Amino acid sequence: MRARELGIAIGEGSTGPRNAITDVDGVLVGHSTLIEGEAIRTGVTVVVPPEVPLFAGCHRLNGNGELTGLEWVRESGLLTTPIGITNTFSVGVVRDAIAARSADDDAWSLPVVGETYDGFLNDIRAQRVTAVHVESAFAAASPEVVEGNVGGGTGMICHQFKGGIGTASRAVGGHVVGVLVQANYGRRSRFRVDGVPVGELIGDRVPTPSRADEAGSIIGVVATDAPLLPHQCDRLAQRVGLGIARVGGTAAPTSGDLFFAFSTGNGGLAAETGELALRMLSDGEIGPFYDAVIDATEEAILNALLAAETMTGRDGNTAYALEPDLLAELLRRS
Amino acid sequence: MRARELGIAIGEGSTGPRNAITDVDGVLVGHSTLIEGEAIRTGVTVVVPPEVPLFAGCHRLNGNGELTGLEWVRESGLLTTPIGITNTFSVGVVRDAIAARSADDDAWSLPVVGETYDGFLNDIRAQRVTAVHVESAFAAASPEVVEGNVGGGTGMICHQFKGGIGTASRAVGGHVVGVLVQANYGRRSRFRVDGVPVGELIGDRVPTPSRADEAGSIIGVVATDAPLLPHQCDRLAQRVGLGIARVGGTAAPTSGDLFFAFSTGNGGLAAETGELALRMLSDGEIGPFYDAVIDATEEAILNALLAAETMTGRDGNTAYALEPDLLAELLRRS
Amino acid sequence: MRARELGIAIGEGSTGPRNAITDVDGVLVGHSTLIEGEAIRTGVTVVVPPEVPLFAGCHRLNGNGELTGLEWVRESGLLTTPIGITNTFSVGVVRDAIAARSADDDAWSLPVVGETYDGFLNDIRAQRVTAVHVESAFAAASPEVVEGNVGGGTGMICHQFKGGIGTASRAVGGHVVGVLVQANYGRRSRFRVDGVPVGELIGDRVPTPSRADEAGSIIGVVATDAPLLPHQCDRLAQRVGLGIARVGGTAAPTSGDLFFAFSTGNGGLAAETGELALRMLSDGEIGPFYDAVIDATEEAILNALLAAETMTGRDGNTAYALEPDLLAELLRRS
Amino acid sequence: MRARELGIAIGEGSTGPRNAITDVDGVLVGHSTLIEGEAIRTGVTVVVPPEVPLFAGCHRLNGNGELTGLEWVRESGLLTTPIGITNTFSVGVVRDAIAARSADDDAWSLPVVGETYDGFLNDIRAQRVTAVHVESAFAAASPEVVEGNVGGGTGMICHQFKGGIGTASRAVGGHVVGVLVQANYGRRSRFRVDGVPVGELIGDRVPTPSRADEAGSIIGVVATDAPLLPHQCDRLAQRVGLGIARVGGTAAPTSGDLFFAFSTGNGGLAAETGELALRMLSDGEIGPFYDAVIDATEEAILNALLAAETMTGRDGNTAYALEPDLLAELLRRS
Repeated sequence: MRARELGIAIGEGSTGPRNAITDVDGVLVGHSTLIEGEAIRTGVTVVVPPEVPLFAGCHRLNGNGELTGLEWVRESGLLTTPIGITNTFSVGVVRDAIAARSADDDAWSLPVVGETYDGFLNDIRAQRVTAVHVESAFAAASPEVVEGNVGGGTGMICHQFKGGIGTASRAVGGHVVGVLVQANYGRRSRFRVDGVPVGELIGDRVPTPSRADEAGSIIGVVATDAPLLPHQCDRLAQRVGLGIARVGGTAAPTSGDLFFAFSTGNGGLAAETGELALRMLSDGEIGPFYDAVIDATEEAILNALLAAETMTGRDGNTAYALEPDLLAELLRRS
Repeated sequence: MRARELGIAIGEGSTGPRNAITDVDGVLVGHSTLIEGEAIRTGVTVVVPPEVPLFAGCHRLNGNGELTGLEWVRESGLLTTPIGITNTFSVGVVRDAIAARSADDDAWSLPVVGETYDGFLNDIRAQRVTAVHVESAFAAASPEVVEGNVGGGTGMICHQFKGGIGTASRAVGGHVVGVLVQANYGRRSRFRVDGVPVGELIGDRVPTPSRADEAGSIIGVVATDAPLLPHQCDRLAQRVGLGIARVGGTAAPTSGDLFFAFSTGNGGLAAETGELALRMLSDGEIGPFYDAVIDATEEAILNALLAAETMTGRDGNTAYALEPDLLAELLRRS
Repeated sequence: MRARELGIAIGEGSTGPRNAITDVDGVLVGHSTLIEGEAIRTGVTVVVPPEVPLFAGCHRLNGNGELTGLEWVRESGLLTTPIGITNTFSVGVVRDAIAARSADDDAWSLPVVGETYDGFLNDIRAQRVTAVHVESAFAAASPEVVEGNVGGGTGMICHQFKGGIGTASRAVGGHVVGVLVQANYGRRSRFRVDGVPVGELIGDRVPTPSRADEAGSIIGVVATDAPLLPHQCDRLAQRVGLGIARVGGTAAPTSGDLFFAFSTGNGGLAAETGELALRMLSDGEIGPFYDAVIDATEEAILNALLAAETMTGRDGNTAYALEPDLLAELLRRS
Repeated sequence: MRARELGIAIGEGSTGPRNAITDVDGVLVGHSTLIEGEAIRTGVTVVVPPEVPLFAGCHRLNGNGELTGLEWVRESGLLTTPIGITNTFSVGVVRDAIAARSADDDAWSLPVVGETYDGFLNDIRAQRVTAVHVESAFAAASPEVVEGNVGGGTGMICHQFKGGIGTASRAVGGHVVGVLVQANYGRRSRFRVDGVPVGELIGDRVPTPSRADEAGSIIGVVATDAPLLPHQCDRLAQRVGLGIARVGGTAAPTSGDLFFAFSTGNGGLAAETGELALRMLSDGEIGPFYDAVIDATEEAILNALLAAETMTGRDGNTAYALEPDLLAELLRRS
């Protein structure tokens, strides 16, 4: 069940065919999900661009998190590897695994790997993610994006409901913008769906997890086929936060709200000599892309929530899903 | 008429006594308003801290604007002058006037002066603001903040209604956080009041100004008496953008969305030798301040809109107010 | 007298034809110099690019200074006006004057204007620079760059010698990189010429000005005809600081060391619709441009020092020149 | 053999007792060195602060490298773990190992781990560093800093001589500033020792390694017991680059020149509630700390070069030491 199936359409724009980040041609998403025994609830998600390097940018809304590789992204304006997302204690293993697979014999690699904290449902300190899981995620990479309790999103919690992976997209003037989130942030009391204070309306009708309500983060990845330069990608990345704000996020102090954006609109950037011929979307055309990022982010978070199912894990902790029927009922009444 | 008088209360927090940035002890706001003939509709607003230097920070949501002095704020973590806000073509004169008044004989001064563009209602190229108006604004500085068509906000437009100066505050654990905005940004179609899509509901019932809908900006100033360090002020400043997002702002490409935050919680920072004794709010206490900034920003924008009155200026251009009665009616029905 | 005429050639690269920022085709430099009575020793320098907008970037080494317009440069990657440099108390008037001259009727303008502090020799608080002087500087703009006690550099002091405006350039693989500095920073004790500790060797043989030795700043402007994107311009801008370090600068706490870089290699960037066709220097080719910026900065500072002449101003204060003969003698002996 | 033993003293300041980063009370440095067979030449270095969190800051001179954890450092102003330095392909394993050892059961950890590339001498793609080596480095942590071919510096190359780990310190007004570098950057032709063009003078007298001359990086860590706030730590971090510039570094495009600074001058920062009492060095006192960082960086690089010994590794590749006798001879003659 996705937001659109409930009649929720954020903003006025139309979606891409899949309403997913993979509407950007050549972008694939793969998951490796680890659900083992009573306490392992984690995984790895990879966002695979059609080629590297590509122009890219980033934004830090709140930095209580990790997204490796950003110094090189800021310096070079380039995404030079696929992107990984996992749990807080496994960033390193995923990062090294991507480094190992992507580099030539005499080259180095500075992978972009992010995380959110799944320690409420997952025995995060067991550090069960390995390079094998990273390979599985790549092997599973596909244009069809599975949402909810999968990959890096397996054990995540969002606005005190079960969270996880979500995606959405918008068509913009012959181009497409897609957003993928690993949503693990937020308080229920501020949760809104297209402006409706659903969190307040639900209150305790759905049990809240016992963890500290602020403990969480959100990683947002934006892709577009519009030919954006690096500084334009930065601008898109910052707009992810505006979408989160509309859902009710506050970029809480314990949250790692880190956003990344890349453009497939210019290729062949690996050339080491001479000059490259590029295209650039004029700044006068970029406004609708901001709307698209904001709206797609809001919808991606809702998709994550709606796809996620109630999960019990470590220490018997349970995070309850936002049931689509309940949401539909509340929106009808508002 | 302010938002609270219409029964609109953003968020769960309580306001300070004046629901204004001047609830922070010692902070004053003064305006000098220039309404002359058919085409001059502009002015200067000053936010006067109780002393300088004070710890401060800033954030750029979209940089199509000017806020001088930020290199020194970023380097030193200090606000070293009062803050001025005016129109785009008069930033310089206000900046030099503040420099002239605040410096010792052998010192220099790096004033913080921002702007938004009032060229639809004001003959901005006439550059009518002078140092005399800056002095008038300081002379008028008071704890009572006049809102709407005053000072730097005189000729501003917000969500395609008449905009201007607005303010609000929140009490947070024995401290107060106040926000003042010069609101001149946004499209009507995205305008929301506490989640309700008021802009859509109004549509053409109120005429829209003929200017390019994206042409605009918002300057946000945050003050608090909590003892925040400079990097904590940066964090508050970034949250202003989350409040704007909730009202429907997208940080459009032609918008100068620049935010500033300062703390009066540590004084005596002018000492040039030895060590200073400071206090710092622990990070574990800072979350409610984020909520406060987001909520107060949303309410400050609404206050600016509700206080502003329909204005005709340059070339007979008119910006129409968001009439409180109309808003109240729409909210009742939603 | 310039450094090369004394046999000083920094680095291995060759210079452009004029060994000046104006070796970048179409770049002009103009000065307006105010030397009046006993106490006015100031002025305005403009660096005029062949067109605007152009891709640009910047870097803050130490932010105790002003360089307006940087928020828009960082956001858009564009220089949209000529660049002005003046004294600390006149940044505003120069900024507003450039805004007034460069904007269309319904456009705004965010000029880039920097400053250093000339209050030792100049009655800076008199704020004698006006829009007329800005116009004079533009009227005087030429490919021939006058150095030393001219324009914004009129009253400046560098490594406790008389400083001012200097420039140099380097040819790099069919392109050229030029640097212009307004040099007003540094202690004599750390001053070096191509590694030789000239400052120590001179010691008190040349009188030192009585002002606080750290009070000063340096503005550096880099231009190149290589087709650099904005983030590549940022990289060039940061290398200005490495050149300053070699001369003995420490980016002292009271110094405003702000650097700007722009590229003329892509034009036609004003288009507001559609896509722009661009060229980009591949990153594999950019290394020699870094060497060029570092070396040209070092040489531009030396040129400023060698062109500057002993000056007496406000309160009878005197800054003494680094006499070329003395420098030549010291280098011969080292 | 260290620089001082050759009579090389950079700058006018005096050193701390060990002339090492460990002159900052409570700071320890440990190495784990992996030299195995013909092709493994790598390791891990840890810099262990006396407690965490501590105020900290950072600077990117050139971002072709990794230093994890910086988003949290920038956001919170805090170093929350010990610092690791290793090779490019092992950042992740070191990062996860430090995360595992430092976190409480329900806490997360965002370690700061940097790298430089040792692939010329080391079979870097073998990824031989494990969590065990990280533990060994911690077990070996001591106030006595071994320099040269040790720990993370084992296989490094600097100015085309054998490089590695080096350190130095300066006493500043009752405080101390220490710098540790993992030096793996630079071309010989630009190499200078206290201004003397030693690289040019040596030329081919010492064989140059066959790798691309620009392939390299430098990580710099600054510690001080002066009570600096986070933004003041940023300022110290940026000055590391000025020291590198004096030695002849250009922050080449393929270099990861990332700098970190922390202050032990305020402790007890882990408090999650209430207000913390802090001390802050006044900005008027900070200038000599900049000199200290610049000078200590220059000397730390020289110490790394002088301690390093000629090494042969992967594919029989050899990097030759800068022999102290040769350097002494060249300096005598200059």
